[in-house]
Amino acid sequence: MTPFDASVYSDRRARASAQAAAAGLAGLLLTPGPDLRYFLGYTPAADLERLTMLVLPAGGDPVAVVPRLEAHDLEVGAVGGVEAVPWSDGEDEHQVAARLLRPDGRYAISDAAWALHVLGLQRALPASSYAAVTTALPMLRASKSPEEVARLAAAGAGADAVFAEIVRRPFAGRAECEVAADLDALLRDHGHEQVDFTLVCAGENGADPHHEAGDRVIRAGDMVVMDFGGLADGYGSDTTRTVHVGPLTDREREVHDVVRAAQQAGVDAVLPGATCQDVDRAARAVVDAAGFGEFFVHRTGHGIGLTTHEPPYMVEGEETPIEPGMCFSVEPGIYLPGEFGVRIEDIVVAFPTGVPGLADTPGAAVRLNTSPHEVVLVE
Amino acid sequence: MTPFDASVYSDRRARASAQAAAAGLAGLLLTPGPDLRYFLGYTPAADLERLTMLVLPAGGDPVAVVPRLEAHDLEVGAVGGVEAVPWSDGEDEHQVAARLLRPDGRYAISDAAWALHVLGLQRALPASSYAAVTTALPMLRASKSPEEVARLAAAGAGADAVFAEIVRRPFAGRAECEVAADLDALLRDHGHEQVDFTLVCAGENGADPHHEAGDRVIRAGDMVVMDFGGLADGYGSDTTRTVHVGPLTDREREVHDVVRAAQQAGVDAVLPGATCQDVDRAARAVVDAAGFGEFFVHRTGHGIGLTTHEPPYMVEGEETPIEPGMCFSVEPGIYLPGEFGVRIEDIVVAFPTGVPGLADTPGAAVRLNTSPHEVVLVE
Repeated sequence: MTPFDASVYSDRRARASAQAAAAGLAGLLLTPGPDLRYFLGYTPAADLERLTMLVLPAGGDPVAVVPRLEAHDLEVGAVGGVEAVPWSDGEDEHQVAARLLRPDGRYAISDAAWALHVLGLQRALPASSYAAVTTALPMLRASKSPEEVARLAAAGAGADAVFAEIVRRPFAGRAECEVAADLDALLRDHGHEQVDFTLVCAGENGADPHHEAGDRVIRAGDMVVMDFGGLADGYGSDTTRTVHVGPLTDREREVHDVVRAAQQAGVDAVLPGATCQDVDRAARAVVDAAGFGEFFVHRTGHGIGLTTHEPPYMVEGEETPIEPGMCFSVEPGIYLPGEFGVRIEDIVVAFPTGVPGLADTPGAAVRLNTSPHEVVLVE
Repeated sequence: MTPFDASVYSDRRARASAQAAAAGLAGLLLTPGPDLRYFLGYTPAADLERLTMLVLPAGGDPVAVVPRLEAHDLEVGAVGGVEAVPWSDGEDEHQVAARLLRPDGRYAISDAAWALHVLGLQRALPASSYAAVTTALPMLRASKSPEEVARLAAAGAGADAVFAEIVRRPFAGRAECEVAADLDALLRDHGHEQVDFTLVCAGENGADPHHEAGDRVIRAGDMVVMDFGGLADGYGSDTTRTVHVGPLTDREREVHDVVRAAQQAGVDAVLPGATCQDVDRAARAVVDAAGFGEFFVHRTGHGIGLTTHEPPYMVEGEETPIEPGMCFSVEPGIYLPGEFGVRIEDIVVAFPTGVPGLADTPGAAVRLNTSPHEVVLVE
């Protein structure tokens, strides 16, 4: 991905250090993946069994523990002035890291840090303790800067272009997996360097929210749920539309209308002062009122950024207030076992201001997907 | 990847349970990645933030904790009869898992299990304790069955075919990254569904063992280290050859000859009764004797199987005896800062018997890479 200015990364590190201090943590321990990309602009080439870890103390300067073989890569690839502490094959990497930590400190560590490493740190420093970053500071990466929202908007526009192309292609007579392969290729054509999912769920398969595209041949009369996304220039896309092969039955139309209204209600609930669970409640109320409540079997949404699934989650019990710049999906669905399913999903940004190419909308959500919400009829 | 017979997976599970019991463990906790592929033949589509975990008790039947949304995928995708315990969004997945564990048990957990999950289990069961699988039972997947060796041999043959093709293409005048792109495409042409690395290190860049292919244009007179591999039908390839653009200098020839002799000595040290460190010592002795010891800056090798980097490691201090079916790299190198580097790497299998397509060789190592060891001159 194209790096941001060095000041972006140093500002993020300073902000995170302050948040860690306010939360009573000794610091943050950030390992390869989205956390390291966010705070250091760096991804090691491979070798995750060797410890690479950015130590971001609550007070003091950041330090990066790195395998000696990769010290040069980190020097070249990392953005901003972070001291590297290399360790060599044969050394105990966790002892090397432990010398940089407070022996009795409590640290937040990347969710996806390897068990090998968190257990190694516990062994090296028995009086230290650890919490996952999303447990201790779940909203650390949740509010996106204008530059990040612009990347998410570009990824969303790419996914919308994919939808516009796929509905012009034939559906009837092709297997789900053939349409999925088209989605994969189209996402790459439209700026995605990584494809995370291309779900294509025809007819009764649409009743399984996580059905993978398979050999099922699509027929006239099928509802087809398509949920696809990935990373474009480092930031995620994720959108779902439910299309239909030929004209709909009344029941199919009714269910699609309910989901569409629920999706709109969810987006409309993104208001200053609202919490994440308010979005879930607003969408769910529409589905409940229409009598389909028991068939809406998942949360309403999830955050998106350097990954396609991250906090905040739009789910009952999530009382985090929605802050400007939070980006997340709103994706209610109805799943009728043995019949069909319908889901509609857009990424939205809360209360954007100062985003290049996006109108300032301080009091509401703005959709980063603009594919039509009416059901599209395909052939 | 093509699954093996169901009995392969149930045999592996039974063997691992017995090893866990013998090691005083309450069981094994295996999460998505190579461990879950090895013991269940299953990889979830995505959503690693949701807990999927195979519990393999030291005594008793295996159970798979799985997100409810993916219970159907697991039922379809998992090989052999393993009971699924689904959990739903909103439930505490670690409490669900904890009910399946011994409250004071010591468990070995996959190296790459997320910190989020190992910390969640520690919170749910404060009297339980954990070790990484490669700490507690490092050789769990190290000895490959004849069917696994056959897959590794096929992956190695694919990589060798890639080498045969790449050296017929032009080097001089092209950037390292162009050659790397060719290697990527060729690996896919030769049966690889995943490419893990395509290092191309020209001239002075060869002195950095982990240099990534970059913009450096290859010139006449360059040594070029190429190290590439990935997964073919689920099993890994990994090979390195150092080629030269046009004729070599005497010094280049000397260094290449030393590395070639060191690689041969490493392979020759794979004998019944030898340990992993014996392989490292044998290769290193040749480099030391030639006066280049300080420039051989990494271990001599690593295991390979469902991943391209795993135990056993051929490194000083690794006293594990070499067992029949162990597959690992032998890859000494010499790295002369500011000048060039040379590395030669083959995958070998120790003492193979009963491998389809491979002669029984009970007393020695057999190379799974057979590209020429003489330096190949390219244009």
